[in-house]
Amino acid sequence: MTSEDIAYVAVDWGTSSFRLWLVSKNGDVLHEERTDEGMSVAAEIGFSAVLESHLDRDGLSALTPVIVCGMAGARQGWVEAPYVETPATLSEIAANAVSPKDARREVHLLPGVCQRAEGAYDVMRGEETQLLGLVLSGLEDGIVCLPGTHSKWVRLEEGRIAAFRTFMTGELYALLSGHSVLRYSLALPEDFDQVADEVRSAVAQAIEKPEQATAQLFSLRAEDLLADTSKERLAARLSGHLIGLEIAGAKAFAGNAGLQSVVLAGAGRLATLYGAAFQAAGIEARTVDADDLARRGLHAAAGHLFLKG
Amino acid sequence: MTSEDIAYVAVDWGTSSFRLWLVSKNGDVLHEERTDEGMSVAAEIGFSAVLESHLDRDGLSALTPVIVCGMAGARQGWVEAPYVETPATLSEIAANAVSPKDARREVHLLPGVCQRAEGAYDVMRGEETQLLGLVLSGLEDGIVCLPGTHSKWVRLEEGRIAAFRTFMTGELYALLSGHSVLRYSLALPEDFDQVADEVRSAVAQAIEKPEQATAQLFSLRAEDLLADTSKERLAARLSGHLIGLEIAGAKAFAGNAGLQSVVLAGAGRLATLYGAAFQAAGIEARTVDADDLARRGLHAAAGHLFLKG
Repeated sequence: MTSEDIAYVAVDWGTSSFRLWLVSKNGDVLHEERTDEGMSVAAEIGFSAVLESHLDRDGLSALTPVIVCGMAGARQGWVEAPYVETPATLSEIAANAVSPKDARREVHLLPGVCQRAEGAYDVMRGEETQLLGLVLSGLEDGIVCLPGTHSKWVRLEEGRIAAFRTFMTGELYALLSGHSVLRYSLALPEDFDQVADEVRSAVAQAIEKPEQATAQLFSLRAEDLLADTSKERLAARLSGHLIGLEIAGAKAFAGNAGLQSVVLAGAGRLATLYGAAFQAAGIEARTVDADDLARRGLHAAAGHLFLKG
Repeated sequence: MTSEDIAYVAVDWGTSSFRLWLVSKNGDVLHEERTDEGMSVAAEIGFSAVLESHLDRDGLSALTPVIVCGMAGARQGWVEAPYVETPATLSEIAANAVSPKDARREVHLLPGVCQRAEGAYDVMRGEETQLLGLVLSGLEDGIVCLPGTHSKWVRLEEGRIAAFRTFMTGELYALLSGHSVLRYSLALPEDFDQVADEVRSAVAQAIEKPEQATAQLFSLRAEDLLADTSKERLAARLSGHLIGLEIAGAKAFAGNAGLQSVVLAGAGRLATLYGAAFQAAGIEARTVDADDLARRGLHAAAGHLFLKG
């Protein structure tokens, strides 16, 4: 790779992670970097400084443009890229990118998407770019699940983000396993297959009786005190309860058409976990790699903003 | 008060609080102390040392016996007082008190109660003593709600603790308001009346759609970003969602007879909050003071163990 091959730099800048790709004109990734210089870190050091430190090392010319998605465009980020409202199209998202004044090169921050429906206020930042990638890969209509700290469920209609709903599944798991009374009773299973049944049965239980959610949580602690269930199985059950509760809510979100199939935008452990959960819920899931989608979305936005045919 | 008037010392020793009462033979409280020397603190200093430091100051003879309920009897406490199983009677609880060997006087630690039913494992420590107090005040059958960090719902049958269920309501509120992304969006209302409607509507919503629980949580954050709803109203709604979810679960717990009325063992802000929630849920609630119940329960147990007619 020479710096001439590089058409632009793509960055997915989250709250706690920074991912950078050097990309050729036709979208090939020539180089990839991942660090923990997320928004929280960059807000102290300076966003431009963090970005340029990477590009300096890569020996990049100041003429190479950068496209960024994620929390760097939040109010507490580099500069605010105000939300585009649902229903949101691909071209609207690219058209509403903003450029920070203190950047030492051409930088475009993509906006997030918001939903203002009464009682269903919601926001996303970063996932809209993955959804762009998905639409460009041919999915124009359907239900998409993007699991994570704040899991998003999205209804795509004619290539637009029609509506979405965020579930605090990942953050609740982190809080409960790290800071609640349950922290003494859980251990991460080394081999997922050994606890997959636990996940599935907890998912089914949560879908059937979502109102028992907060009682099921404490019951894990009690079971640890009273029975000899392993902490790995209890942790699997906690995951299952929270994901099951999410799926129960997503079923209502999917509406009358029901939730027969879903596109799961994930990877690794989380995709495996959600895969088992969808199995238990009788939902057909097709998994697509979330990172790959983000890069495709950034490439599409780059095409809109500065890549010339 | 002279030390001759004092028949015994009653202690409610929780995880983070220590409450002590000097009590006359007929159950009158002659003196009360409250500190934060809960189990976590006492485990470091020593339980006997904490207790004796109070009794020394009070000038109490080494002949005065002490009765203790709460987490001091847990495995990580002073000495373990193993759980009594449901259905549990008053006399069983008193009969299963244990005495720590390193105590410098007669000390009785009351056991907690556990439930081993498959899929509904549960434990309590401290609440059983409040329930004793309630039974002695004449309630032998009914549903009791003891709100708190780990809210307990109990079915009393013929004066026994027949079954119970714990909801993590208070702990979830603390985690979400203190450590989650919601922490930026909430503020404690100074005047409860101003937000009572928010609590009631969130309770009704959670009872109607418990499966939306974790989505409703994130929606509070989004509403803070997108609308000009006050942080006090959002905090009230968070309380309402969590308590509503608890009530939805408690309705199933109450069984076929339904949940028309409940005894609410609480005090202060929490009792007001739950009172509003029960109103929204169409449940008739009678409030009794929880501290008062604990003291009555301890007095009853003292009667069983050492108070002579």
